[in-house]
Amino acid sequence: MNKKAKRVFKGVIFDVYQWRQKMFDGSFATFEMIKRPATVEVVGITEDKKILILQQRQPNTPVFYSLPGGRVDKSESVRQAALRELREETGYASKKLKKWKSFNEYTTMDWQINMFIARYCRKVGGLMLDPGEKIKVKKITFERLLKLAESDYFWCSRYFTKILFKAKFNKIFKKKLYQELFG
Amino acid sequence: MNKKAKRVFKGVIFDVYQWRQKMFDGSFATFEMIKRPATVEVVGITEDKKILILQQRQPNTPVFYSLPGGRVDKSESVRQAALRELREETGYASKKLKKWKSFNEYTTMDWQINMFIARYCRKVGGLMLDPGEKIKVKKITFERLLKLAESDYFWCSRYFTKILFKAKFNKIFKKKLYQELFG
Repeated sequence: MNKKAKRVFKGVIFDVYQWRQKMFDGSFATFEMIKRPATVEVVGITEDKKILILQQRQPNTPVFYSLPGGRVDKSESVRQAALRELREETGYASKKLKKWKSFNEYTTMDWQINMFIARYCRKVGGLMLDPGEKIKVKKITFERLLKLAESDYFWCSRYFTKILFKAKFNKIFKKKLYQELFG
Repeated sequence: MNKKAKRVFKGVIFDVYQWRQKMFDGSFATFEMIKRPATVEVVGITEDKKILILQQRQPNTPVFYSLPGGRVDKSESVRQAALRELREETGYASKKLKKWKSFNEYTTMDWQINMFIARYCRKVGGLMLDPGEKIKVKKITFERLLKLAESDYFWCSRYFTKILFKAKFNKIFKKKLYQELFG
């Protein structure tokens, strides 16, 4: 986001910013960008080496699959958000949470996505869902995750999609990814 | 977008919509969504079977690679936009333009992306760029495009990324993709 950008709209999730941008020919134009709260996505690994996946529906979506995750609240760190979302959406707690990747994949949207690896996940209770969530928790293998990545109903970032797909055509990368996730 | 959604902000590119959404427990919440103009992306194939790629910079970006494309103007069809963007950004005209894919890849943004295949592209003039564009045109092979897809500086949709990556681990899909693009 340009330093001179000013907020021109404040929404429930999305804020809109604008600034005066100098062009290559010296002229100026109004540039515009969206800002939304940072989110977390958690690769939760259970003690028996499975990955926690949500089968999910929201009031305005079809059934889709995703990693546990969600928006970072104003009162918490990204790390706290990762542990909270994992707990609320799966009922699992992790003994070893590790920040994995942090990226922003849109040029016109300021949206930080933070990925965590949560190892030694153990079930500690039931789900704690919002009225806008219907979730079933699935435990799947690494191979199954690579397969699931091909589905149009597995919703994740372009970044994570690329990682999973790369593991499908690059054996060295696949081995490295497995080690990164499972330790 | 929900039918009852109302525009609460109108920007230069982005409009914000809100609606009252019934939740699974019968309660209501304000849902919010961004709407932005449809865009086109063109896979331009030259007469010598190369693909037209832009090496590009905009005032607020690093150097990146992309397909020719851009926003659909209010006064034109998506087809007209595809031919116009191809002409302006590459200097090429196509004798056979075919609509390929049309999709929307965000749940919280109403953004239609339209992909075209433009065959028999021939150079007909120079570039016609906006003051916010710096572009060099590259002609690359299909194999080079598959390689380029791995780069963080190749900016395209998640959908197209998945197609290119799938061609790297699925030989039958790769052959089909080649035929779809090159005829």
